Amino acid sequence: MFEEGIRRKALYGDDNVYDFSLGNPIIEPPSEFKLILSQLANDTGSGRHAYMPNAGYAETRQAVADYLTRHNQRRFSSSDIVMTVGAGGALNVILKTILDPNDEVIIPSPYFVEYNFYLENHQGVPMIVGTRSDFSLDLNAIDEAFTEKTKAVLINSPNNPTGKVYSEEELRELGRLLNEQSQRFGRPVYLISDEPYRKIVYDGIEVPSIFNIYKESFVATSFSKDLSLPGERIGYAAVNPDILEKDLIVDGMVLSNRILGYVNAPALMQRAIIGLLDVSVEVSLYQKKRDMLCAGLTSLGYQYVKPQGAFYLFPKSPIEDDVEFVSALKEENVLTVPGSGFGCPGHFRIAYCVPDSVIERSMTGFGKAIKRYV
Amino acid sequence: MFEEGIRRKALYGDDNVYDFSLGNPIIEPPSEFKLILSQLANDTGSGRHAYMPNAGYAETRQAVADYLTRHNQRRFSSSDIVMTVGAGGALNVILKTILDPNDEVIIPSPYFVEYNFYLENHQGVPMIVGTRSDFSLDLNAIDEAFTEKTKAVLINSPNNPTGKVYSEEELRELGRLLNEQSQRFGRPVYLISDEPYRKIVYDGIEVPSIFNIYKESFVATSFSKDLSLPGERIGYAAVNPDILEKDLIVDGMVLSNRILGYVNAPALMQRAIIGLLDVSVEVSLYQKKRDMLCAGLTSLGYQYVKPQGAFYLFPKSPIEDDVEFVSALKEENVLTVPGSGFGCPGHFRIAYCVPDSVIERSMTGFGKAIKRYV
Repeated sequence: MFEEGIRRKALYGDDNVYDFSLGNPIIEPPSEFKLILSQLANDTGSGRHAYMPNAGYAETRQAVADYLTRHNQRRFSSSDIVMTVGAGGALNVILKTILDPNDEVIIPSPYFVEYNFYLENHQGVPMIVGTRSDFSLDLNAIDEAFTEKTKAVLINSPNNPTGKVYSEEELRELGRLLNEQSQRFGRPVYLISDEPYRKIVYDGIEVPSIFNIYKESFVATSFSKDLSLPGERIGYAAVNPDILEKDLIVDGMVLSNRILGYVNAPALMQRAIIGLLDVSVEVSLYQKKRDMLCAGLTSLGYQYVKPQGAFYLFPKSPIEDDVEFVSALKEENVLTVPGSGFGCPGHFRIAYCVPDSVIERSMTGFGKAIKRYV
Repeated sequence: MFEEGIRRKALYGDDNVYDFSLGNPIIEPPSEFKLILSQLANDTGSGRHAYMPNAGYAETRQAVADYLTRHNQRRFSSSDIVMTVGAGGALNVILKTILDPNDEVIIPSPYFVEYNFYLENHQGVPMIVGTRSDFSLDLNAIDEAFTEKTKAVLINSPNNPTGKVYSEEELRELGRLLNEQSQRFGRPVYLISDEPYRKIVYDGIEVPSIFNIYKESFVATSFSKDLSLPGERIGYAAVNPDILEKDLIVDGMVLSNRILGYVNAPALMQRAIIGLLDVSVEVSLYQKKRDMLCAGLTSLGYQYVKPQGAFYLFPKSPIEDDVEFVSALKEENVLTVPGSGFGCPGHFRIAYCVPDSVIERSMTGFGKAIKRYV
């Protein structure tokens, strides 16, 4: 994807390619980050880049625990936190810990394309279930997907690629269902919530915490989106303080962090985020982009569910074949990703974490592409 | 290991615990690193912490390729390099790329304990073969370990835990053997060389390059030891420019880097190392530690092969049961690791990347422990 954008920009000029194909935040990290980074770079203490325990610095884990305690109805301790190489690292650490070969994980579609790979890394099997037309959870479909091999349900809210935020109500329903299934099987069925977009939400919405809703739960997250640091690979996995066999699970996560070859989350970034847990990029800038894009696409006749968070829009493809439509857009130098890649054909993803001017100038291309078919 | 050291230091005082259990460099990163880090922290350019292509920044890959071209009889290009989350990341990326389930990898013992896990991550099978009494390669043993499932041989030179550096001559023998076996099976058998200690060698010795010796080869390495940055997780995987099906292999490595959840090597450190490829910590400081330790242990009656590189000494345990002897040392607050953990019972590992004073003051404990048995 990266390479296609680079290739086209070399060919047609930077200003004539509208690259919506990547979730690479355009907004710079907040000034607080830059200040802390500068301070850390000039820190003359010793061992600042050495190994630390595989779970991370004690101070960093404690700071994350305190943050989670402030934002949840649970008391977290540092031992509930494992610092990881981004949310990708966190998910792999969690999956390595809980999965036996051929265990199944239920995933609502559309879903982040890497989940299939992450499961395959640990010999897990994805069980993809659809969502409703507004991308909310289809709890009947989830219920029906359970088998004796089901180890977990993996959700992503705010969602990539739809921007959907699951409501407190539907998460409580999901929690009830998971409790029932755990009782049925006499062992916990886990809920894993992938939440790197938690702070990027619009119109005053809040993302409910699964920690308040379901005991056997994990959160995987990163500072990639809310601090615009995706290249630095800093994130964490948190367990519900009340999860069963917590010591065993956290020990497994720490070991997994080590033996998967991550070893630990990058040292400098672990120090940096201690003071940045309540900081984020200016979310209103993304909201403005969403609104510009939505207004433009509506006037051109595109249909979509308005995103509540993240920086993705997932419109219907005007024709059934989303791959063909994405090709048509590409001919206009508008780069997007087919919904098929997210387990949801008939749609396509627009990552609108781009300069406002790209959104504005892309409208001609979006217009030409849709006019070919309608 | 980390935790045991922390626990004992809390109990007995920092100065009364002699922790030789971890390969965590004591020497600070070179001043050149600190200068560059400070410059990068104050860089006001945009997108400095954003995603880049999964293989790494083009400039970083090119700088590594140029460095390898300077130090080998091969011409490397940026596309021969994949930047990784340390050497652990590099090894997992290489193994994920080349291994099918149940493929075997021949590993001379003693070996770095993580190799077993790294193979298991990708459903590979370790075939452990002994080395000779001076820890040089036992080429007959390697030859006999080949089966139709053998996909690679994995070596580590300078070696953890022995400090052995394989000679040009034995590597050439190994290359001949690998060529024979590749011909026998009609497909390449790969040589993977794990080389994070390449620059940490003593007495003017040089580590021969496998790139000059065997075509179907990979190097995994990091800046963890030569720049003392293990906590920052920055390293790379390099393929031999002449490897068969290079494009397919490198594409596989880049994909593996992404889907194993690493995504990319940390951005800031990728930028930092561009100007640091010919820099390293002051190796003579480690040589001094080796010499102090060797002199002390010799006078106490310990037997060992003198290390040529890295910062490990792997003496014979005075009694057969190395786990028991390591316990005896622990009672003197001297923390080491049993050879059994490296597939080589009857020995134990001393990581001497510690302050000189720790080596000096530990001699009483080393003396008391051996006196119990001899």
